[in-house]
Amino acid sequence: MLRYTGKSVYKEIAMGPVIILNKHTPIVKRKKIEEPDTEISRIEQAINQATSQLKKLYEKAVKEVGETSAAIFEVQQMMLEDEDYLDAIYNMIRTEMVNAEYAVAVTGDNFSEMFAGMEDDYMKARATDIKDISDRIVRNLEGKEEVDLSQMEPSVIVAEDITPSETVQLDKEKILAFVTRQGSTNSHTAILARMMSIPALIGVPISLEEIYNGMPAIVDGFKGEVIFEPSEEQCIYAQEKIRETEEKVQLLYSLKGKENQTLDGRKINIYANIGGVGDVGYALENDAGGIGLFRSEFLYLGRTDFPTEDEQFQAYRQVVQTMAGKKVIIRTLDIGADKQVDYFNLGKEENPAMGYRAIRICLKQPEIFKTQLRALFRAATYGNLSIMYPMITSVEEIQSIYNIVDEVKNELEKQEIPYRLPEQGIMIETPAAVMISDELAQLVDFFSIGTNDLTQYTLAIDRQNNKLDDFYRPRHKAILRMIQLVVDNAHTEGKWVGICGELGADIELTETFVRMGVDELSVAPSMILKLRKKVREIKFLQEDE
Amino acid sequence: MLRYTGKSVYKEIAMGPVIILNKHTPIVKRKKIEEPDTEISRIEQAINQATSQLKKLYEKAVKEVGETSAAIFEVQQMMLEDEDYLDAIYNMIRTEMVNAEYAVAVTGDNFSEMFAGMEDDYMKARATDIKDISDRIVRNLEGKEEVDLSQMEPSVIVAEDITPSETVQLDKEKILAFVTRQGSTNSHTAILARMMSIPALIGVPISLEEIYNGMPAIVDGFKGEVIFEPSEEQCIYAQEKIRETEEKVQLLYSLKGKENQTLDGRKINIYANIGGVGDVGYALENDAGGIGLFRSEFLYLGRTDFPTEDEQFQAYRQVVQTMAGKKVIIRTLDIGADKQVDYFNLGKEENPAMGYRAIRICLKQPEIFKTQLRALFRAATYGNLSIMYPMITSVEEIQSIYNIVDEVKNELEKQEIPYRLPEQGIMIETPAAVMISDELAQLVDFFSIGTNDLTQYTLAIDRQNNKLDDFYRPRHKAILRMIQLVVDNAHTEGKWVGICGELGADIELTETFVRMGVDELSVAPSMILKLRKKVREIKFLQEDE
Repeated sequence: MLRYTGKSVYKEIAMGPVIILNKHTPIVKRKKIEEPDTEISRIEQAINQATSQLKKLYEKAVKEVGETSAAIFEVQQMMLEDEDYLDAIYNMIRTEMVNAEYAVAVTGDNFSEMFAGMEDDYMKARATDIKDISDRIVRNLEGKEEVDLSQMEPSVIVAEDITPSETVQLDKEKILAFVTRQGSTNSHTAILARMMSIPALIGVPISLEEIYNGMPAIVDGFKGEVIFEPSEEQCIYAQEKIRETEEKVQLLYSLKGKENQTLDGRKINIYANIGGVGDVGYALENDAGGIGLFRSEFLYLGRTDFPTEDEQFQAYRQVVQTMAGKKVIIRTLDIGADKQVDYFNLGKEENPAMGYRAIRICLKQPEIFKTQLRALFRAATYGNLSIMYPMITSVEEIQSIYNIVDEVKNELEKQEIPYRLPEQGIMIETPAAVMISDELAQLVDFFSIGTNDLTQYTLAIDRQNNKLDDFYRPRHKAILRMIQLVVDNAHTEGKWVGICGELGADIELTETFVRMGVDELSVAPSMILKLRKKVREIKFLQEDE
Repeated sequence: MLRYTGKSVYKEIAMGPVIILNKHTPIVKRKKIEEPDTEISRIEQAINQATSQLKKLYEKAVKEVGETSAAIFEVQQMMLEDEDYLDAIYNMIRTEMVNAEYAVAVTGDNFSEMFAGMEDDYMKARATDIKDISDRIVRNLEGKEEVDLSQMEPSVIVAEDITPSETVQLDKEKILAFVTRQGSTNSHTAILARMMSIPALIGVPISLEEIYNGMPAIVDGFKGEVIFEPSEEQCIYAQEKIRETEEKVQLLYSLKGKENQTLDGRKINIYANIGGVGDVGYALENDAGGIGLFRSEFLYLGRTDFPTEDEQFQAYRQVVQTMAGKKVIIRTLDIGADKQVDYFNLGKEENPAMGYRAIRICLKQPEIFKTQLRALFRAATYGNLSIMYPMITSVEEIQSIYNIVDEVKNELEKQEIPYRLPEQGIMIETPAAVMISDELAQLVDFFSIGTNDLTQYTLAIDRQNNKLDDFYRPRHKAILRMIQLVVDNAHTEGKWVGICGELGADIELTETFVRMGVDELSVAPSMILKLRKKVREIKFLQEDE
């Protein structure tokens, strides 16, 4: 038995065999060979194999995350046919009489370094891809199977960290838990775990050695520990816990189709936060009343150039159509801060969280903004789409946005392209927006309070900086007072208010929010039924009211 | 005539000869020599000369900025006697038969590199010093005068940027204006210029060539331009402007000794912000009613280890004694964010402005905090000293501070060391503190609103990031509403409120602040009489009141 502890980001328990996601490059030895032609034909075979692997990955990605994000696998396929790259490999084999593995690995490193040194950001980004395809060819040459994650049995994933692009390759149905060496409570792994309602431990000091592969393990999100090769006693305890959880899940599922209303009939909307087209399924499965926050960043991340209007339009349309008349609130681009994208050329900032990000980029580079607005206005004709703007701090910003909105409308009009101007709201996530929410309420259709950013600015605490954990108080009275102020100001103007930050999912605050008059809570899909249960237990009116 | 434009940080105009502060290292040529002993005795002479130069710099610095900051020149004197360093130089001359200048320059570079590569932060910091003394010896060998800034005629200083340590060497009486290539509106140069009421242009794309030395120039802070070799017409215009300014200054000086009160008798305190013992003179000269913000960081910056309790005590005592009974509010340590000090080992943070800084360091490392509190409580027996704590976000933090304050009191009591518990206030510079200012007012003696930080957190805009200039609105209604809220909450508890951020010096808001009930404005010394003039023009009560 081996036990490690880490920081738990989701309180559940799971048991199953381990899969080590080890990104270490294969170690290749230089060998002298006699027949270069044999090596070259081995390579040709390995490349054919790689081409069909990439084709499969592409098709899978298209289904799960859409063409935009899948494009990276197409790019890699094209690189497999690059003549300079192939010539360099073949020449090396012929002139130095070395083995195929060695020639591919060295050429891969050389090309990767060359790309990394280029000025152009697109070419720079290709450095990782050339390394990836070289590793793939070497793996094929060595006859090593790629850990085929789509065919795996339900498993505990152990890795350095899980990046957004890796999740494409994971069959989410088969993941029992995450255990990672890196990661913060706001990392992609953590968000994914909460979304999927599975246990996850981060910051676990475990070495990623192959010997763990297939070993049985228990991941206990309550205790924050992972146990490899557990004892029978430990297994029984875990099974009991898992059974309890399943019962709770069943209980929650019995709430599907029920209203989110208090014992005395006060209703509240409970919507889902999602980060990609692939998450819509989770939202529906958990009976979300709508999408309260659709982060449009996924369209921009993990690629090398801006998504086109049509790529965006397809994604937005797919979501509103799938949600079939239920409200879908898409937040416009919130790049910057901890979400960096090379081709935006944002540059290094001293304090990126208080930097050039979100609506600031959109207003300074309106061509980017206009493309997104066109796609959104076009998709709005296909369903119940609303949009909201992030990081608002002033009335002037809204006026600038509306000027751009007018331009976009006029252009679509002129081009006779069908569109609909959707409901327009703003995120309330800066203290400035809170303080002038009376004036802002006159200008927009709704507010959505982003408590994550609002809390970090209000407390002047970077929420990703774990040195400050002692000072970070998410339920700070200042935040609760701000929420009440925003709700009152919105209602005075007859506008509705939601909360889409993590505080919205805090069960201990649900009653407070209902009493404050909050109209909507938008949370991770896995929290929707839990919140419904809580709401249905609240007696809104006191005895003496 | 040559004209450059830049960003003006103080709207005045000045005219005078240019001094280029060029930090470029002298170019040294290798020459073969015949008599090594001659070279060595030349070096001995140059070192003697350097020793007496450093002694003078030390004495001047002690007078102007105190022993603590002057210590660097003592350290450099000691390094001049370092045997390893001298042996290396002499050996090189004897074995390679090279000239003194070359041996000193090369040895200086070698030692500097060696120090820079050391683990220990103290030794690392010595790399710059060894380079400095080597450059100084080379200058002496070449018979080049150090630009003697203490003997200069009144001049326009042109430089890459002005660092805090350089200002020690400048005779502030003789500086007419600053022109720098680097710098932000919140840089040291900009703050210094505002403090001294002289024009300053930053971000000027000028090359720092020697040929500009002594050239006549006009620095026009109104137009944001500097003109070298101006025409007669331009000189006449500048002289006229300068005369106007002098008249205004005379008018202001006629306000010395007058009350800060409105036409109908409402009074407000106008205090000075200072950043070191040397600035007290400016405060008194401009008739400050007290020191509203004494930044204690100067005691910690530009050194290699923590200041001792006694060093701090001496500095605090000197200030309160010089202010002779007038209020002196000393802010406890506000290190972190853009004020980094090596020996604190703060580490790199993603968003330092929302990071481990100020009171957060003091509460996590109470031994640092206690030393400062002991020094403050002891100095408090010598005059009218108050203290205030920065970056407060919660009631719990104040309780933690008071626990430490109690420990310090008990220790001093036990050791029978004379002390006095001063008035204790807090900075209101986070939106959280604003929102719970009703509760905070019950716990402290006064509030001082730090509008610089409060504005950057409220707007989520790093004020040093010039990419965001279009979005930064210092007079944002959110900030004005926050100030009103804080004033009202403080007054309900019978506590007074000051403003010590830059907004306090905004003449166009003075009437607003008086009407809000703000009790004190603490501003750069140069602004005090301008504010007094403004206050004395205000008619507080409207006709119909």
